[in-house]
Amino acid sequence: AKTHQQHCGLFSCSCHVLQESLLSSASGYSNYRGILNWCVVMLVLSNARLFLENIIKYGILVDPIQVVSLFLKDPYSWPAACLIIVSNVFILAALYIERRLSVGTISEWTGWILHIFNLTSMLIFPSATVLAVTSMTPVGGVVSLGVYTVLFLKLYSYQDTNRWCREIRQAKAKTLTRSYSCKCSNGSAVHTNVSYPGNLTHRDMYYFVFAPTLCYQLNFPRSPRIRKRFLMRRLFEMVRGNTPWMVPTIQNSMKPFQVPESLFPPLLSFPLPSQVPNHLIWLIFFYWFFHSTMNFVAELLQFGDREFYKDWWNSESVTYFWANWNIPVHKWCLRHFYKPMMKKGINKFMAQMAVFLVSAFFHEYLVSVPLKMFRLWAFMGMMAQVPLAWFVGRFLNGNYGNAAVWISLIIGQPVAVLMYVHDYYVIHYGTTK
Amino acid sequence: AKTHQQHCGLFSCSCHVLQESLLSSASGYSNYRGILNWCVVMLVLSNARLFLENIIKYGILVDPIQVVSLFLKDPYSWPAACLIIVSNVFILAALYIERRLSVGTISEWTGWILHIFNLTSMLIFPSATVLAVTSMTPVGGVVSLGVYTVLFLKLYSYQDTNRWCREIRQAKAKTLTRSYSCKCSNGSAVHTNVSYPGNLTHRDMYYFVFAPTLCYQLNFPRSPRIRKRFLMRRLFEMVRGNTPWMVPTIQNSMKPFQVPESLFPPLLSFPLPSQVPNHLIWLIFFYWFFHSTMNFVAELLQFGDREFYKDWWNSESVTYFWANWNIPVHKWCLRHFYKPMMKKGINKFMAQMAVFLVSAFFHEYLVSVPLKMFRLWAFMGMMAQVPLAWFVGRFLNGNYGNAAVWISLIIGQPVAVLMYVHDYYVIHYGTTK
Repeated sequence: AKTHQQHCGLFSCSCHVLQESLLSSASGYSNYRGILNWCVVMLVLSNARLFLENIIKYGILVDPIQVVSLFLKDPYSWPAACLIIVSNVFILAALYIERRLSVGTISEWTGWILHIFNLTSMLIFPSATVLAVTSMTPVGGVVSLGVYTVLFLKLYSYQDTNRWCREIRQAKAKTLTRSYSCKCSNGSAVHTNVSYPGNLTHRDMYYFVFAPTLCYQLNFPRSPRIRKRFLMRRLFEMVRGNTPWMVPTIQNSMKPFQVPESLFPPLLSFPLPSQVPNHLIWLIFFYWFFHSTMNFVAELLQFGDREFYKDWWNSESVTYFWANWNIPVHKWCLRHFYKPMMKKGINKFMAQMAVFLVSAFFHEYLVSVPLKMFRLWAFMGMMAQVPLAWFVGRFLNGNYGNAAVWISLIIGQPVAVLMYVHDYYVIHYGTTK
Repeated sequence: AKTHQQHCGLFSCSCHVLQESLLSSASGYSNYRGILNWCVVMLVLSNARLFLENIIKYGILVDPIQVVSLFLKDPYSWPAACLIIVSNVFILAALYIERRLSVGTISEWTGWILHIFNLTSMLIFPSATVLAVTSMTPVGGVVSLGVYTVLFLKLYSYQDTNRWCREIRQAKAKTLTRSYSCKCSNGSAVHTNVSYPGNLTHRDMYYFVFAPTLCYQLNFPRSPRIRKRFLMRRLFEMVRGNTPWMVPTIQNSMKPFQVPESLFPPLLSFPLPSQVPNHLIWLIFFYWFFHSTMNFVAELLQFGDREFYKDWWNSESVTYFWANWNIPVHKWCLRHFYKPMMKKGINKFMAQMAVFLVSAFFHEYLVSVPLKMFRLWAFMGMMAQVPLAWFVGRFLNGNYGNAAVWISLIIGQPVAVLMYVHDYYVIHYGTTK
């Protein structure tokens, strides 16, 4: 005869247990990897459709000439490329100043002055060039100014770190104990670690210049080998027709200007129809730059630290978003700006505001100079984050806070972008119609 | 003097560690709750825009009469509602048969015949009514046949479980030991547990009929109290204008028929333009029915088991999807169809095929009868899952498998739906134009 236990098992007379649904916040469940895949599939499918429709309606819209014309006005003068090549002068200047400092030929003070001069020129020289050279296109201007800004941050970090190394060397020399063996490296066993003056080589400098980070460090952690499949996949993602459908989408996003404005108040009608393409472009740009490109470069250079972004998509407050979507810049700000300020006794709130101010300055710098329009929209957009952060932090949390961050991204960015586009059209074509 | 440790900490001379990017599959990271919120925000925003645009273009499109007319042709005859009310006859019949069986007035064999007769009538009677009554609309037909199908599955489970209870009672009576105290319940302390013949009451039967499950059990797990905020939120989600924009979206999804077919081969042009709205409607329906409605009903009845779906969005194979998107049906199939077949010694593959066949039959039944068209598209769509499952399981895994499942959902469903819509238009309006 069967026992009751067996009966219960065979007949499963009790098949329900007390539990919550996964989508209820009470369940604490958060694995939505599939939703990310869904977004990618939807994006690819709708682009495929757009692409097909466009080809049928207009034929192949984007000719290579059109793409090239974004960067060049006159095929015989390449101002942006020349500007980028010239940047080597500043890189080498920084290296030679450091070499002098390491052997003590010049004093710390002279070195500091020379670095400041070098770094300031790196901001003024390219912007003056962009403003002066008439054959510079806006896209060329943004790219070359972007390169110079990145180099500026890198070289600032370079001189800061080298100075710290000298200070450590001095501290060691004073105390003369053996307990100070520097273990500041996470490099793998393959690469031999260098210590302070040994790092001032061209090879080390250019490795840092091309490495996907803004913070200098003597011995970067290195990945053990170049994974060929990983490299190929990132390369495919980088190349895979981002341009072919970028241009029609941008052209589409200009369309709201043709909507009769009398129907809506302008501020409502402007951002709404173009918010989605603008936001999608930003998301694709994020993936393209922070995941595909940076990982590709890192894999090529065997650069080990791949934390280029954290989980900003889950951010439940504005500050979390700003601290996690762009880790290289955030790390730089923390290491070379915020922490030194804190050490000098400036209070926390003032230091945070200063970081936002500098960030707002660079946002404005990268937009205004290439467009040759000084409107302060980007600056104001960046500074508007402060009250927004306060509001979201004060009144919203959990999924509501997350939704507020998303809405501010979806609505906020296009408003700033459209302000510039609108003004650019008014200046260059005299009307928005 | 500062120690080197302090220097390292203060100057953070080493700020990089060997790590992968979060989006790389090597990182093993999977918390994308924020992406889900993004989807919801995008959906709400784009609907708000669509809604505004529609109001401006056409005024308020959906009048209540139009919604009512989906269910009713003649306001004085309510065939669907009447049909649903009549279903009580079958429910009570099942209860009275069980009562007779419990006291032994009729034999097991007679009871089985009566149940089979009752259950078969539950499939034949409503479909005959829907086919015969001319004032029945397709939507009314789908709803009433859906209700009857759910009741059919519930009552099948009811008689099965009660029979098991009798078998356990017999086993107990034979052995006459005290070790057989039935502990088949997970109910909370508030509700006193009932044992076999005590459950054959009207109250217990109707609780099961309204409970969001298809599997009968003597003592369902109960939640300790009705959470009013939870209830209100689910109610809001249920009511919140699903209809206002449903109708325009459905009307939009009909538009591909106006696209000149000569440009594309028909099979390509048909599903593509309408795939996205169809898929979105399915997703919203899923959330509305499986999360909002079922949780609302469960909260109201203090029904404890809220597992109405599992994480099908992460499914990396077609079988995982079918086993996890609709847990009530999956649980029923497993408990009352698949396991009994396995016990009878039928092999695994045949049992799985049988489950798919029965599922395909019910899909076809729920579509063909209300539309009064017998086309087998739904049946074939369901059976096509078998080779698809084999293909995906054989050649794809991880994120690629997940993407394949999503594509089959995005492309597959609209193809089946459009087949019916196309044929319906051809029959009722003579042309697709």
